[in-house]
Amino acid sequence: MMLRRLWPLLLLPGLAAASLGAAGPQKVKLSEASEECIECHQSVTPGIVANWRRSRHARTTPAQALAKPETERRFSAKAAPQGLAQVAVGCAECHSGGASHRDRFKHNDRPVHVVVTPADCARCHPTEERQYRQNIMSQAYGNLRSNPLYWQMVNTVNGIRGPAGKIQMPDALSQADSCLQCHGTKVEVKGLVKRETSQGEMAFPVLSGWPNRGVGRINPDGSKGSCGACHNRHRFDIAVARQPYSCGQCHKGPDVPVAKVYAVSRHGGIFKSASSSWNLRQVPWRPGKDFSAPTCAACHVSLLVDPEGEPIAQRSHRMNDRLAWRLFGLPYGHAHPKEPDTSKIRNKDGRPMPTALDGTPAAGFLIDAAEQAKRRGRLQKICLTCHATSWVAGHFKRLDNTMAYSNRSVLAAFKLVQRAWRHKLARPDNLFDEHIERLWAEQWLFYANSVRYASAMMGADYGVFDRGRWQASGNLAAMAD
Amino acid sequence: MMLRRLWPLLLLPGLAAASLGAAGPQKVKLSEASEECIECHQSVTPGIVANWRRSRHARTTPAQALAKPETERRFSAKAAPQGLAQVAVGCAECHSGGASHRDRFKHNDRPVHVVVTPADCARCHPTEERQYRQNIMSQAYGNLRSNPLYWQMVNTVNGIRGPAGKIQMPDALSQADSCLQCHGTKVEVKGLVKRETSQGEMAFPVLSGWPNRGVGRINPDGSKGSCGACHNRHRFDIAVARQPYSCGQCHKGPDVPVAKVYAVSRHGGIFKSASSSWNLRQVPWRPGKDFSAPTCAACHVSLLVDPEGEPIAQRSHRMNDRLAWRLFGLPYGHAHPKEPDTSKIRNKDGRPMPTALDGTPAAGFLIDAAEQAKRRGRLQKICLTCHATSWVAGHFKRLDNTMAYSNRSVLAAFKLVQRAWRHKLARPDNLFDEHIERLWAEQWLFYANSVRYASAMMGADYGVFDRGRWQASGNLAAMAD
Amino acid sequence: MMLRRLWPLLLLPGLAAASLGAAGPQKVKLSEASEECIECHQSVTPGIVANWRRSRHARTTPAQALAKPETERRFSAKAAPQGLAQVAVGCAECHSGGASHRDRFKHNDRPVHVVVTPADCARCHPTEERQYRQNIMSQAYGNLRSNPLYWQMVNTVNGIRGPAGKIQMPDALSQADSCLQCHGTKVEVKGLVKRETSQGEMAFPVLSGWPNRGVGRINPDGSKGSCGACHNRHRFDIAVARQPYSCGQCHKGPDVPVAKVYAVSRHGGIFKSASSSWNLRQVPWRPGKDFSAPTCAACHVSLLVDPEGEPIAQRSHRMNDRLAWRLFGLPYGHAHPKEPDTSKIRNKDGRPMPTALDGTPAAGFLIDAAEQAKRRGRLQKICLTCHATSWVAGHFKRLDNTMAYSNRSVLAAFKLVQRAWRHKLARPDNLFDEHIERLWAEQWLFYANSVRYASAMMGADYGVFDRGRWQASGNLAAMAD
Repeated sequence: MMLRRLWPLLLLPGLAAASLGAAGPQKVKLSEASEECIECHQSVTPGIVANWRRSRHARTTPAQALAKPETERRFSAKAAPQGLAQVAVGCAECHSGGASHRDRFKHNDRPVHVVVTPADCARCHPTEERQYRQNIMSQAYGNLRSNPLYWQMVNTVNGIRGPAGKIQMPDALSQADSCLQCHGTKVEVKGLVKRETSQGEMAFPVLSGWPNRGVGRINPDGSKGSCGACHNRHRFDIAVARQPYSCGQCHKGPDVPVAKVYAVSRHGGIFKSASSSWNLRQVPWRPGKDFSAPTCAACHVSLLVDPEGEPIAQRSHRMNDRLAWRLFGLPYGHAHPKEPDTSKIRNKDGRPMPTALDGTPAAGFLIDAAEQAKRRGRLQKICLTCHATSWVAGHFKRLDNTMAYSNRSVLAAFKLVQRAWRHKLARPDNLFDEHIERLWAEQWLFYANSVRYASAMMGADYGVFDRGRWQASGNLAAMAD
Repeated sequence: MMLRRLWPLLLLPGLAAASLGAAGPQKVKLSEASEECIECHQSVTPGIVANWRRSRHARTTPAQALAKPETERRFSAKAAPQGLAQVAVGCAECHSGGASHRDRFKHNDRPVHVVVTPADCARCHPTEERQYRQNIMSQAYGNLRSNPLYWQMVNTVNGIRGPAGKIQMPDALSQADSCLQCHGTKVEVKGLVKRETSQGEMAFPVLSGWPNRGVGRINPDGSKGSCGACHNRHRFDIAVARQPYSCGQCHKGPDVPVAKVYAVSRHGGIFKSASSSWNLRQVPWRPGKDFSAPTCAACHVSLLVDPEGEPIAQRSHRMNDRLAWRLFGLPYGHAHPKEPDTSKIRNKDGRPMPTALDGTPAAGFLIDAAEQAKRRGRLQKICLTCHATSWVAGHFKRLDNTMAYSNRSVLAAFKLVQRAWRHKLARPDNLFDEHIERLWAEQWLFYANSVRYASAMMGADYGVFDRGRWQASGNLAAMAD
Repeated sequence: MMLRRLWPLLLLPGLAAASLGAAGPQKVKLSEASEECIECHQSVTPGIVANWRRSRHARTTPAQALAKPETERRFSAKAAPQGLAQVAVGCAECHSGGASHRDRFKHNDRPVHVVVTPADCARCHPTEERQYRQNIMSQAYGNLRSNPLYWQMVNTVNGIRGPAGKIQMPDALSQADSCLQCHGTKVEVKGLVKRETSQGEMAFPVLSGWPNRGVGRINPDGSKGSCGACHNRHRFDIAVARQPYSCGQCHKGPDVPVAKVYAVSRHGGIFKSASSSWNLRQVPWRPGKDFSAPTCAACHVSLLVDPEGEPIAQRSHRMNDRLAWRLFGLPYGHAHPKEPDTSKIRNKDGRPMPTALDGTPAAGFLIDAAEQAKRRGRLQKICLTCHATSWVAGHFKRLDNTMAYSNRSVLAAFKLVQRAWRHKLARPDNLFDEHIERLWAEQWLFYANSVRYASAMMGADYGVFDRGRWQASGNLAAMAD
């Protein structure tokens, strides 16, 4: 809104460059293939092309990206992909090539694929792709679908209970429209369809599980995830990925109320009040200089440097690299799993859960105290940029105490479920289909989680009246009834 | 905040114009009557005058507006109103004249009226006013007040239940302060009152149902609605109307969680992350160029053009022109009503509802499949600006499935109510006063609606854990109990 | 984001000043002590130093502040503190000196204290500190901790109910992590601890109840509150304090849903749509000119002047100076308490509450009708800047009616609790531990409060479907069951 008013200023000689953003007005060559795409698509899908034109991809060649000093570099391959060093990263560079895209089809005589995947991005960004493969989010589809307990929950939630109590199983489109919207669908090619277009009849692949941009999407080339979940196509603007709205698409609660807690935290308030004057595109990112309060990315992902340019934190797309606890209770908060594929975890009772129903951690599958300390230390180094040691120590002591507190409140709920099972008031075969079991599930999924996130990120009311301790204690009273 | 810092720049010769916004620094004449208003009101109500001074109205005459090329024109009358062609649109131009304003009174010897209505706006914007009359929102007062079933719901919700179970009917001020805040009140003149002012004693009309800015307000001139509900007085800034906060005043949930779903959708995230560099005042509006993700207005109201200036969508103030389904369940999602006055609808059981309690649509009163296809096509044309055909097809297929799914979940709830009625556990005379009936109402009003909007606008958690499928399935379990 | 793009502009000769914000590019001297602090801390805690450098404190001396015309002055002392008149307000100026800081310790041979308190700020801002002491918020710790009834509620909410129904009392860290996060903790010095630092081993005070920034924090110097709760350290940017996100940290609901109601109100919508072009740092603040819709601060705190520079409202840090009603129900909405220490109030039944359980006000402890009228008048003078008299009169008439309405709905709930007590279905010893009592508490704490705030600030859905009348009437039905 404001820039608009200042556009006339930009017509002053020599100032036009300023309008193009951080990367400057470099004019770079497009590949012949991409030129061809754009020729039609700038009128067929003008929004996509306009968005891409504003991207760094459109104004940078791999050779230029590679020439940057290391901490400023966003390109992590050792060399530019074959034949692409001197052209912009355009349509054809991402939508063709790559190994085994089952969604590849002939489009105006060129082989292109619809779904751009982490494997495609890895040609220029292999480090990030490798880290992301270690990120639990990349396994979000399988961690739900291959875990019989969690999949039972999904079916119980998404199914419709008939008058006789029998649950009608949800169909594939309902699953895609609910849990899998964030977890990711399995995208499969189901043949080709012919469609009339402005260029005459053309054939396109038919995809099931499409559209989807879930973080653990199973792609037609076998890779997992979608970089576009956070790095929004087709501008892939780092300023968008760094703002909390990207994370908040999925992490908004009530199961994972991170975005809400952040929004009412002091950090979130400063972000909303002051970020219009921040430098959200600077790489490496400089706390204090480029921003005055952290966003999600600052604490959990970005490369941060101090005023001397020394790293405070390394960039990581394994997003629990700086996290000791997995706050998200399943059903108890616990140390982070060692491996991103959590469907293989077995607790002491043989169930595929990181803790037993009584809270005992499946310790062999979780990181140990030493690794927890290491990860906590990485995060605290960021906190210490703006907070004194005693502040940080006090904060984390309180969080550890709240972890234990919230786990006790989940255990209290579980004992009431056990009692109901013992008295045959409920059956333990399905953990999610009876009223008391649902109250138990809400105790951890909504209330204990809310209390933990409110503690970790200082959003008080989510720890008390907004699905916090008030509801947790009321729930125990209701369950006892 | 930022512009302020740059104000010194604007003092460079020739740059001052830039500060005045899109319409430029035209200096236009005020009518004598408006000059007189401003003389006092710039100190009596300085906020109003300052706001208006920033408006396009203050800097444009009807003659200038009329001279614009058609797609840029915001003035839809064939000619300027009598005698007003060469003056700015000031106080007197809107607050006097017009047909039969019962709130007209003598103010410093001039006849003025308090409530500016769509009929007043129609002198320059007749097309928009005509479209809005066909908009279901313009009937929001009568659709509630004249529908005995809905009005029973209002009274049951807003009344206070005494210890013996009898409900004390809500008074008029409570109604005005709750449902009618959005639906609109009936504004009536109840005489004149004298008040001491800085200009001595003056008489002013006493209005009942005032203040109100509901979309279906019944005005003292007999017209319906309030343009100011979205086009905020007295600047009437199109940039405000186009941002989701205007729609979100009423459509925020939990009954119509549109603003919340949008906020966590990818579209909403991009809006929040990037809209500070968008051109929110451009007419016609150019996807990709002026904005990179749609707001409510982009999909449902605005005139959009492609890079060649060809219309992608026509401007419409009948806001369901691009909508096949009415997602809002009453109690089932259904095809849009043909006419904006829905109080005349009768379902197969003779009730004034667009569907029967078992889900059968009151088909004669609703648009048919062909009209649905036409409206869906209009919306999809906008989607296709940034999304491929297979993306769009997959999205709408999923939405249609979710419509059917959510309707089944409402039917499952109704069957449980029916059973309660059969077993005399509840009485069917009032559909909203007993516990099981309220659970049924929440099944459609909160949960099924939430699931539908989450599907339509891709805000996953509102389809699952935030008054979505989790609550819907839990509610069925609780009702069965 | 946008400013960044325009930075090149600022390199034009003579324009650089514009980037430094409202106070201009004055170069002011730092005290020797502060120079010393910064020498290390700019690399130890770079975020703090960078933030402070952007502050007005860093660019202004008390002497300069004192020289401003009275309405522009933010400095309210009669003279600059001893010896500080000619230096910037740096680290040492706030973190040393003052009367009896028990958290004072030797740091590089200088006595410094960790916790900067209202008593420290009062050296330059005594009027604001004095007003704040009269603000009920300054007593937020004691009003909870010293009120046996409210403290019972805290313990019932934060304690964990065992299977036998016995509640395990919450520990101090849990209290600090929940209610006291907003109300404030008691910060006490528990000795010194030695820590290895980049400067070798150093000793630091160990603080209990730390970190905390609650509005009623009990400080180690005996003072109460934290100016930093709203005036965010270390920039203390008035633009942050004036934006609703500051207030929304604590006032977000569901108990006090102010931030949420504001966000969906027309005022909030305009703020979000248009505030990027407002002048959020101007003192005094000019409605219409500097902003076009009020934020929390505009109505409740700030000094506002009209176009002639005449005060519309005086600055006040006693934030109920412009409020007739205390909307927040305990358990009924009521006239504001006369004194900020509410733990001394006794109602007709001898309980420490501003109303009796049947709604009778503890009249002797509350402001009378004349004082209410005076306060209401102050607020209305602000409303009248942008709204006509009939508008304002209608709005406040409706609010008064809704106060009475919501109180009746709380009374209806209390009668049901009384009946349960009479029939021995519950015990009156603890008002918050049984299911029906919790429903009663939710009737006032969540629903009646929501209805009142929705009325006061025009956020319709919070008065109806979002913890409003729908839930209030449903709750009465459930309690009756």
